[in-house]
Amino acid sequence: MLTRVKSAVANFMGGMMAGGSNGDHPGGSDMPLKYPYSRPEFLGLSPDEIECSADHIARPILILKETKRLPWSTGYAEVINAGKSTLNEDQACCEVLVVKRRPAGSSTPNRTPLTRRRSSLPNGEGMGPRESDKLLYLTLHYWALFDGHAGSGVAVAASRLLHHHIALHLQEVTEILCTPNLLPPTCLGEEPINHHLTPTSQRALTRAASLRGAAGAPGSPSTPPTRFFTEKKVSHESLVIGAIENAFKDMDVQIEKEKAVYNISGGCTALVVVYLLGKLYVGNAGDSRAIIIRAGEVIPMSTEFTPESERRRLQFLAYMQPHLLGNEFTHLEFPRRVQRKEVGKRMLYRDFTMAGWAYKTIEDDDLKFPLIYGEGKKARVLATIGVTRGLGDHNLKVHDSNIYIKPFLSCCPEVKAYPLAQYEHEADDVLVLGTDGLWDVLSNQEVAEAVTCFLANCDPDDQHRYTMAAQDLVMRARGVLKDRGWRISNDRLGSGDDISVYIIPLMYGNKQN
Amino acid sequence: MLTRVKSAVANFMGGMMAGGSNGDHPGGSDMPLKYPYSRPEFLGLSPDEIECSADHIARPILILKETKRLPWSTGYAEVINAGKSTLNEDQACCEVLVVKRRPAGSSTPNRTPLTRRRSSLPNGEGMGPRESDKLLYLTLHYWALFDGHAGSGVAVAASRLLHHHIALHLQEVTEILCTPNLLPPTCLGEEPINHHLTPTSQRALTRAASLRGAAGAPGSPSTPPTRFFTEKKVSHESLVIGAIENAFKDMDVQIEKEKAVYNISGGCTALVVVYLLGKLYVGNAGDSRAIIIRAGEVIPMSTEFTPESERRRLQFLAYMQPHLLGNEFTHLEFPRRVQRKEVGKRMLYRDFTMAGWAYKTIEDDDLKFPLIYGEGKKARVLATIGVTRGLGDHNLKVHDSNIYIKPFLSCCPEVKAYPLAQYEHEADDVLVLGTDGLWDVLSNQEVAEAVTCFLANCDPDDQHRYTMAAQDLVMRARGVLKDRGWRISNDRLGSGDDISVYIIPLMYGNKQN
Repeated sequence: MLTRVKSAVANFMGGMMAGGSNGDHPGGSDMPLKYPYSRPEFLGLSPDEIECSADHIARPILILKETKRLPWSTGYAEVINAGKSTLNEDQACCEVLVVKRRPAGSSTPNRTPLTRRRSSLPNGEGMGPRESDKLLYLTLHYWALFDGHAGSGVAVAASRLLHHHIALHLQEVTEILCTPNLLPPTCLGEEPINHHLTPTSQRALTRAASLRGAAGAPGSPSTPPTRFFTEKKVSHESLVIGAIENAFKDMDVQIEKEKAVYNISGGCTALVVVYLLGKLYVGNAGDSRAIIIRAGEVIPMSTEFTPESERRRLQFLAYMQPHLLGNEFTHLEFPRRVQRKEVGKRMLYRDFTMAGWAYKTIEDDDLKFPLIYGEGKKARVLATIGVTRGLGDHNLKVHDSNIYIKPFLSCCPEVKAYPLAQYEHEADDVLVLGTDGLWDVLSNQEVAEAVTCFLANCDPDDQHRYTMAAQDLVMRARGVLKDRGWRISNDRLGSGDDISVYIIPLMYGNKQN
Repeated sequence: MLTRVKSAVANFMGGMMAGGSNGDHPGGSDMPLKYPYSRPEFLGLSPDEIECSADHIARPILILKETKRLPWSTGYAEVINAGKSTLNEDQACCEVLVVKRRPAGSSTPNRTPLTRRRSSLPNGEGMGPRESDKLLYLTLHYWALFDGHAGSGVAVAASRLLHHHIALHLQEVTEILCTPNLLPPTCLGEEPINHHLTPTSQRALTRAASLRGAAGAPGSPSTPPTRFFTEKKVSHESLVIGAIENAFKDMDVQIEKEKAVYNISGGCTALVVVYLLGKLYVGNAGDSRAIIIRAGEVIPMSTEFTPESERRRLQFLAYMQPHLLGNEFTHLEFPRRVQRKEVGKRMLYRDFTMAGWAYKTIEDDDLKFPLIYGEGKKARVLATIGVTRGLGDHNLKVHDSNIYIKPFLSCCPEVKAYPLAQYEHEADDVLVLGTDGLWDVLSNQEVAEAVTCFLANCDPDDQHRYTMAAQDLVMRARGVLKDRGWRISNDRLGSGDDISVYIIPLMYGNKQN
């Protein structure tokens, strides 16, 4: 996340791998390190390899060595930045988890994770649930990218923990999700609403109802009377989306709490993919991006959250809670800084109500620094941060002030669902996830063309092809080192940022439950 | 806007045309009526005809009698509701205005409208600006629909006034808009930025700069030094959008002020179309809708603002300003009312951070009435209003309480631009505007098919065809009176609401400036 946070990272002094210290926190912290820096576990790197990977001159591209380590033959590649931070602040995680329903009779959620990896590798091979238990287990495929800033601590922590929070929230609704054709009951412990019941789902319903301690079977004396008010119907899909949304919030709360006792530096964006019961869910908080490439066509699966895309939300918040601006910022936007000599003149502006621009007479108050300032990759909130959603950043303040950034940041993802099992996918249909290092220099169309072209030239049975394609993408975005820096096609500048890319083939979803 | 506002309209007692009173304000008002009830001026109806049109049993469809009254051979038709309110609460306005630039040397905007109709008819024929003055005049085509609720007063006022506010705001930037290739200067009175200057626009620029009292010609001793900070470039289109946005706000402020001294009842939605310098601008605040039909394909030109579509904005506001809920409402949404016996159980909910749903343990506070309640056309904010953007409603309160609705309503439109002059349009390519009475019962696709089919069967040279097509649409949405009510195709229920429809052919835009 190049130059995203105006912090004194350049003053970095510690050794990268110095035992016990994550080394990228310039101010230093005497608190213990709970989540030491590393590269993604699935890369299977030795400490030596990790050290070698952090060569800001050579910028070696790391790829997945053993294709079978990840589910669905997922491909992965990454490269470190060109020197903006000593460590690679991107992190990645991929897991296949089995989520077991909450024990019957427990009325409050059990906060002990009842999840387990399906095997010693995250690819999920072996040890699935027993056939007889399947109704009460969910198999969850999970891929995630985190792009850190102002330190790697939060990105590392999130890469270790976020999937457990998602599993915990799904656990609360496992029983419902496992019962096809049963709409989620509005209130747990009451008669569920059922629709289009098949004999199988009727049996499942009866079982689910009894497990949930419902008042009784339909028609029994304890059946509650029919209600005459309308009731909104909530889909299974909405429950999964709600689970992912609330997991992000819990993750952020956990980071806040742990920051009080451990050294966990910075903040990070988060882009996660969950595959569950035939659907892909893409949750995004930040400026990473996911696209599906299907038959060569691009289907965007995320939108970026930046000072520009979230301007109106932030201006609205500042307008309603002006104390958050500490008397140093204005919620209005101007095309550039206002100068004192311009007071009394008419200048272009816009506020939270406006997509367009108009002229206003400049007052003294307009001389304050704008809440949102700059364009494109240089746009900043409170002159500090260039991304408006993500995890962490609880202690981040405007330089040399007591103005906190966090109230303007949201940890809530936007979640998009894609009904994977409804389509037949070919071997070249993929979901591409990348941190902004990729998308800053390559358009969706360029990525789609590169991947489609690359895969077409591979042996369709080569399981390594998706990692090779990911490596190709990272190479195209990093470029090659020429006299004056990293260059990509058409002599454009390559990305000097950390770059991480997943390529997930979709045809495997056809066969999964 | 059927059953939109839970008000005692049914208790209506006054005579509809009773002189001086608009008659639809059940509580009555002793204040004078400034904007008496009427039907759109361009219909040219006599008082008798207006009275006859308000027949809730026959529901006669009113159409434009003289095609030439409106620009571009625009078609128009309307029908009154089936009895929900005595008056037709929809209003419409169509004008062609000439906007003259603000006089040179006046540094603050002149609030006297420097607009005039181009002729005694709104079709704009005759008396255009003199050729030599053209640089400093803008010709503005304007169509608008207003859908009133809880009285017709605000809808009538807005139909008389909103275009003047738009013209006033455009007047401030007329000089800039009239100078092609000149980007709007960030600060008025300073050197403008010019791009791709042709000799003509260079002359225009010099003239504009001198008129604006700029520091001097480029290169002169008084030229300010080059700046090294970045400056956002603002387009002409953004200026027009900003003008429309701010005009809506000014309109709402004027209504608030006049409500203090005049009897102006209720509130209204507003859907306006502005054609200016080759582009169509569609501004929408409410639940009316505009679509373009081009070669039979639908291009949506507006989105509706309802309690459901704006749930998260409203919940966010309530979360941050809980006093607006008066201790009687909760910002959380539940699928239905929570009952006291459910306290302690887990129920589905969502807050402003969530698109999905999750379970929470019900507390006493959750027994309050939800800020957003109901589904589809029955969804309400604060149990009162079913539309979340529009004009007026300043005095509207939750029934039997002191909780005001207005803080949750926005008068800000969403404005979409369509580059009309960039396309060649055929005679059957049209922009359709309709109040929700139309769209409640007909889909975009049904409207597009009906219009396309109807126009294909007309003589292409018949200027009356667009009004005939509008009449056909209103007929399809109203239906015919059968034993049990108004019925449309496939024995569906027709709309019992007021219905108003414009059909604006786009081919005339090809030839306009």
